[in-house]
Amino acid sequence: MIEDKNPQRTPVEQLGEFGLIDHITQNLEIGNESTLTGIGDDAAVIHHNEATVITTDMLVEGVHFDLSYVPLKHLGYKAVIVNLSDVYAMNAVAKQITVSIAISNRFPVEAVQELYEGVKLACKIYGVDLIGGDTTASTSGLIISITALGEQKKEDIAKRSGVQDGDLLVVSGDLGAAYMGLQILEREKAVFKENPQNQPDIEAYTYLIERQLKPEARKDIPELLRKLDVKPTAMIDLSDGLSSEIIHLCKSSEVGMTIYEEKIPLDPTVINACEEFNLDSTTIALSGGEDYELLFTISQNDYEKIKGNPNLTVIGHALPASSGMHLVTRGGEQVEIKALGWNSFNETGE
Amino acid sequence: MIEDKNPQRTPVEQLGEFGLIDHITQNLEIGNESTLTGIGDDAAVIHHNEATVITTDMLVEGVHFDLSYVPLKHLGYKAVIVNLSDVYAMNAVAKQITVSIAISNRFPVEAVQELYEGVKLACKIYGVDLIGGDTTASTSGLIISITALGEQKKEDIAKRSGVQDGDLLVVSGDLGAAYMGLQILEREKAVFKENPQNQPDIEAYTYLIERQLKPEARKDIPELLRKLDVKPTAMIDLSDGLSSEIIHLCKSSEVGMTIYEEKIPLDPTVINACEEFNLDSTTIALSGGEDYELLFTISQNDYEKIKGNPNLTVIGHALPASSGMHLVTRGGEQVEIKALGWNSFNETGE
Repeated sequence: MIEDKNPQRTPVEQLGEFGLIDHITQNLEIGNESTLTGIGDDAAVIHHNEATVITTDMLVEGVHFDLSYVPLKHLGYKAVIVNLSDVYAMNAVAKQITVSIAISNRFPVEAVQELYEGVKLACKIYGVDLIGGDTTASTSGLIISITALGEQKKEDIAKRSGVQDGDLLVVSGDLGAAYMGLQILEREKAVFKENPQNQPDIEAYTYLIERQLKPEARKDIPELLRKLDVKPTAMIDLSDGLSSEIIHLCKSSEVGMTIYEEKIPLDPTVINACEEFNLDSTTIALSGGEDYELLFTISQNDYEKIKGNPNLTVIGHALPASSGMHLVTRGGEQVEIKALGWNSFNETGE
Repeated sequence: MIEDKNPQRTPVEQLGEFGLIDHITQNLEIGNESTLTGIGDDAAVIHHNEATVITTDMLVEGVHFDLSYVPLKHLGYKAVIVNLSDVYAMNAVAKQITVSIAISNRFPVEAVQELYEGVKLACKIYGVDLIGGDTTASTSGLIISITALGEQKKEDIAKRSGVQDGDLLVVSGDLGAAYMGLQILEREKAVFKENPQNQPDIEAYTYLIERQLKPEARKDIPELLRKLDVKPTAMIDLSDGLSSEIIHLCKSSEVGMTIYEEKIPLDPTVINACEEFNLDSTTIALSGGEDYELLFTISQNDYEKIKGNPNLTVIGHALPASSGMHLVTRGGEQVEIKALGWNSFNETGE
């Protein structure tokens, strides 16, 4: 709980909005040439020579995160990552972000500072400038709204709508770990509530918990594809779960798809945790969400270029729209792919 | 109250996030050449030939607005305006916005639609494209976060830091009306609570209430200045009150300023309402806020070009920083200008 971690508690009213902003933005460095003016005017000023991609995400306490097990620094980091992931999913290079927060009076200046430590760390690691935002009071809890801006040549931007019949469907990394990390954290929270003396033994789940609390965005994948001279025909990031994103690609591109259960990349710790929780690992990969991996299509002609790359797995291929969307199970059965992704308005799914 | 106005109440869960977005964005038109891709991908894509200005503001129910007297359509409109005002304050042309909202389950689809009616109306009137956003659940109330993007040649962007010693300080429109509108609305709300049969008589206050509920941004002022061939040396918008914004300009530009009480432009209805509420109209103009007028400085050489323009009033001039910031009262007294602007963390001011 944040209350335990901050021996010093300076009320935000003591500094006021402008004092708080000064406090947060001291020693803030601008690294990108395209950032002309950062924080401190009515608006920031940037100049991208190529096209600009813009994406925005809002995270709400009690809906998207639970501060009883999410450290504020991790939350700040993750809030940036989920936005950068969308920029990389356009095959673009992330350059700038703005960060707005609303906080209730239970958050002292030190808590806001901790949150921004995470924001700034993500900016540093991903080479992104923090150029603006807003800081305001809320009547209940913490809300974070981030906008990320990236740059890319018009003709190299990867949309959802570019899939061609016959293209191969490729996914980066592995799936399901973030969701299983959340299950572990929820279980430990319940155990802790029952018996606060109990020290959780979570060492075996480090990978899962890290994927949930401190995910990374795949900045490396657009870079890798450029190096391999592969131009993705379409791309999307895996925030809501594989099945939901496949449906987005198919609808936007007016194609069908078949994917193969045996091809879905799973980390062994995900398989173990699924057994422990009595969950089907394929279902988790299909509907778990929050993996922040990239899902994209390439022309079959590019297969040789990506073949064997440990970061990339071909899991299926595109078909005419009339063929529909299917998963071929290990047993050879064809199952229709339905949206089972997470929906903030209805936690049990649609 | 919104509950009374919407006989039809479709729960948001019924549509889900994607259904809601489809619902809101149907018939959405893109008008600007620089908007390449709007809503519907991981990110929007724009291409500004000149520099891009970016600004963002977050409005929180119970902090920035009270839905017991603010119609949702007006709220949507105003949320866009406060952002566009920041773009115009950079002497830029507003081109695109993103709109993110978090809503609790007390808001049906019809309420969200009403809010977006206001957003879309502002977009239409100001020639701005709605290109993206996020829609999520909240645990309590309504939160709106908007980011606005504008375009301008680097060398024509007006920053806060450009004021030169001797420059004239100019304000558009008149001041204090939005604040007095809020006083009227708060009074009528209290009267209504006491006696719900009582029909409020607010006709005499139409201008004040409009300035509070449906403010406009001064898109026309940068256009006018271009036409008059006047390049503002610095500019800021009046969101927090005249005194607070003068301090921002002086600090950023390292200058002092003197303004004259008798020059401050006030509408007669503001003077009347101040008398009625037993408030000093100069204090209201200095600290009221939410006027969304533009405050800027010009070289003395440009005075002849703006002289006599009914939209513009010279209220003072810049001095060396050592002279400090002062108001010269009607009685000839010099009073130091202090920040009395509104602060969301402390409604009684700093």
